Amino acid sequence: MVRWEPGATDRLRVAALELYVEQGFEQTTVGEIAKSVGLTERTFFRHFADKKEVLFGGEEQLQQAFVTAIADAPAGPPLELITTALTETAQYFGPERRTWSRQRQQVIQANQSLKERELLKLAGLATALADALRERDIEDPAATLAAETCVTVFAVAFGQWITDGETRSLAEVERDILTEFRTLALETAEP
Amino acid sequence: MVRWEPGATDRLRVAALELYVEQGFEQTTVGEIAKSVGLTERTFFRHFADKKEVLFGGEEQLQQAFVTAIADAPAGPPLELITTALTETAQYFGPERRTWSRQRQQVIQANQSLKERELLKLAGLATALADALRERDIEDPAATLAAETCVTVFAVAFGQWITDGETRSLAEVERDILTEFRTLALETAEP
Repeated sequence: MVRWEPGATDRLRVAALELYVEQGFEQTTVGEIAKSVGLTERTFFRHFADKKEVLFGGEEQLQQAFVTAIADAPAGPPLELITTALTETAQYFGPERRTWSRQRQQVIQANQSLKERELLKLAGLATALADALRERDIEDPAATLAAETCVTVFAVAFGQWITDGETRSLAEVERDILTEFRTLALETAEP
Repeated sequence: MVRWEPGATDRLRVAALELYVEQGFEQTTVGEIAKSVGLTERTFFRHFADKKEVLFGGEEQLQQAFVTAIADAPAGPPLELITTALTETAQYFGPERRTWSRQRQQVIQANQSLKERELLKLAGLATALADALRERDIEDPAATLAAETCVTVFAVAFGQWITDGETRSLAEVERDILTEFRTLALETAEP
């Protein structure tokens, strides 16, 4: 009989990230990760498909949360919809996740294939957001422009949120970045 | 003695794209491409590193053209700089390139690994543009936001430019997309 280890997913996730930070993603084996929390390699593979999934496991839920927020937002212009979606999804990144997110980013930045994986994840998010905006009767090119803007604001804000010494919440940083974004567009608005 | 085939690069590029469209990128061999224009596989590899480079060969020149345009643009707010860069680089995409670009896109869209390569190319362009903007004393997050906006406008405009029946030049489409972009930002500007 297969025994389910309670809390094993989280223990493996924390242990894996620690090892990735200490000795590098490529140098870390699944066996080491499992062993460091007293589990077997087989148990690891009941929780994660591979070493990468430890870092990217939550991406489908995050994308779904963005799409649902767009679907449920009150009617409004495209940028209002994405502002709502950014605020709604920011709650997934509470203060307790900041250190984990910072270390995760550090591991990703050190590895070309992980960096590419992260870029493709963000590109997939933009595609899903554009679809969600079209479902709300926003036409192209506005839907695509707003979706790409949403991903840019999210990525820039996220990068700032995990910076050492940053104390604002992710939602607060996003609001400030959105303001910068509007300023940028306004500065060049034709008279 | 190695004989250089005059015009071979272009002949190989045209022949390769035709074969990719007809029978698929993965199904086409370098031998077939070379043979279709009366050249050898060895000659192909003097012109291109591999099958993919036929499609992505110009990306460094394009990135360099964007960066140079930002460096040489008259001083102004970030979005003025990227507007100049978009206009300057649009001249690389004259009407004679429209059909080739359309077919190239068709081949890329049909193949997951080519799609990923294209996304990474655009991400690299955004990074280079943000660096170029910081060189012009534009600080973050404005530099990153403007760079990402530039790439989004370029990609959306390019997709429109190669649409069947589109008659505007790339520079004209880009101007219209930039206007849409400003409208998007203005619609939500706080009172």
